[in-house]
Amino acid sequence: MQRHFVQEIEGLKSNLIRMGSFAEQAIADSIRALLERDVDVARRVIEQDKQVDLFEILNDEAVVDLLALQQPVASDLRFILAASKINNDLERIGDHAVNIAESAIACIPLAPVPHIVDIPQMAQITKGMLRDSIDGFIHANAQVCRAVLQSDDLIDKLNKQTCAKLVELMRKDSASIEHALELIRVSRNLERVADLATNIAEEVIFATEAMVVKHHQADKGVSQ
Amino acid sequence: MQRHFVQEIEGLKSNLIRMGSFAEQAIADSIRALLERDVDVARRVIEQDKQVDLFEILNDEAVVDLLALQQPVASDLRFILAASKINNDLERIGDHAVNIAESAIACIPLAPVPHIVDIPQMAQITKGMLRDSIDGFIHANAQVCRAVLQSDDLIDKLNKQTCAKLVELMRKDSASIEHALELIRVSRNLERVADLATNIAEEVIFATEAMVVKHHQADKGVSQ
Repeated sequence: MQRHFVQEIEGLKSNLIRMGSFAEQAIADSIRALLERDVDVARRVIEQDKQVDLFEILNDEAVVDLLALQQPVASDLRFILAASKINNDLERIGDHAVNIAESAIACIPLAPVPHIVDIPQMAQITKGMLRDSIDGFIHANAQVCRAVLQSDDLIDKLNKQTCAKLVELMRKDSASIEHALELIRVSRNLERVADLATNIAEEVIFATEAMVVKHHQADKGVSQ
Repeated sequence: MQRHFVQEIEGLKSNLIRMGSFAEQAIADSIRALLERDVDVARRVIEQDKQVDLFEILNDEAVVDLLALQQPVASDLRFILAASKINNDLERIGDHAVNIAESAIACIPLAPVPHIVDIPQMAQITKGMLRDSIDGFIHANAQVCRAVLQSDDLIDKLNKQTCAKLVELMRKDSASIEHALELIRVSRNLERVADLATNIAEEVIFATEAMVVKHHQADKGVSQ
């Protein structure tokens, strides 16, 4: 029984690691599709999200099995509960990659807008946050996760800047409205991915230190 | 032990019911603040979200206690896992009410825009979805939850219509850009609340029928 338990826990861990890489790649590809106006890459992101959805269902089942059959306590229980939440967060990140890919497709027939936005930089930081939070999870490293919480503030700032610049552009040139709206959508989706990476980091800290760091800025709403 | 377990389960249930009413009221108030341009109501929504955040932490602790101390199986386990996810969904709904309240405040100094949008209707339907999904949870009624899944399609349609009308308005009248952008944000937040009510409905169906209905439209991303 004990060996079986360890195997099931390890299986859940590897599935989350693979799902994390998948989600990170989906974000990278959706941004590439946007920047290179590549409809094929965008469509592949949308198509491959079904794989992430399937991962989520399998992991949810593994969590129920582990809880029902093994009745874990203490740190094992905390690990399984954190895995369950991370599973849900990664699935949501996959959905945000789909949103960005949809915006990439919507932008292709539109006239290009000047390169005034910080979207590539935001994408870079966000992918790093996601990678660090998953690394923190694998190595039970709360320290690396605390750095993720700090990057979230930078992403919030960049998102606000980007949206303000795009509103300014819309005001100056009404022909750019549709394109600018799609870029605002992309910026907000990246900001949400950063929020979800932050959730993962918080859950890792909870699982490793059994300490609630959620709502570290209790008066901050999610951005949309 | 058994009586204690039943009491703890009932306590978790009542907390979620109260949290659900709180979230529903927050959505209603944030929309009222928008329509009546009432800064006090909007500020109250933002302030009271801390209460929802506190509920979430308390419920999370109750879930860990129940799993660790009572080691439930079968339908009790499914109920507790569903409660944990619903807890998270309700907290997110509170965050969306905060976003709408922030938009309400941002709109107050801006010139009004013509009443071309379906936001009050969207808010009405969304609140109904939230109420039904919580009712379905209380009475373990999967049927009422299935109706929630259907309303989600209507909200998606209304959101698209609303955004298209607002883009048209921006194009015609550049002075309306900022106001229209805030209304697009409100519309998308309501659409996300409807998605979360749909998640709750799916979780109730899972808890009552042990059947995965998630990803019933696997190729649909979250809207932002």
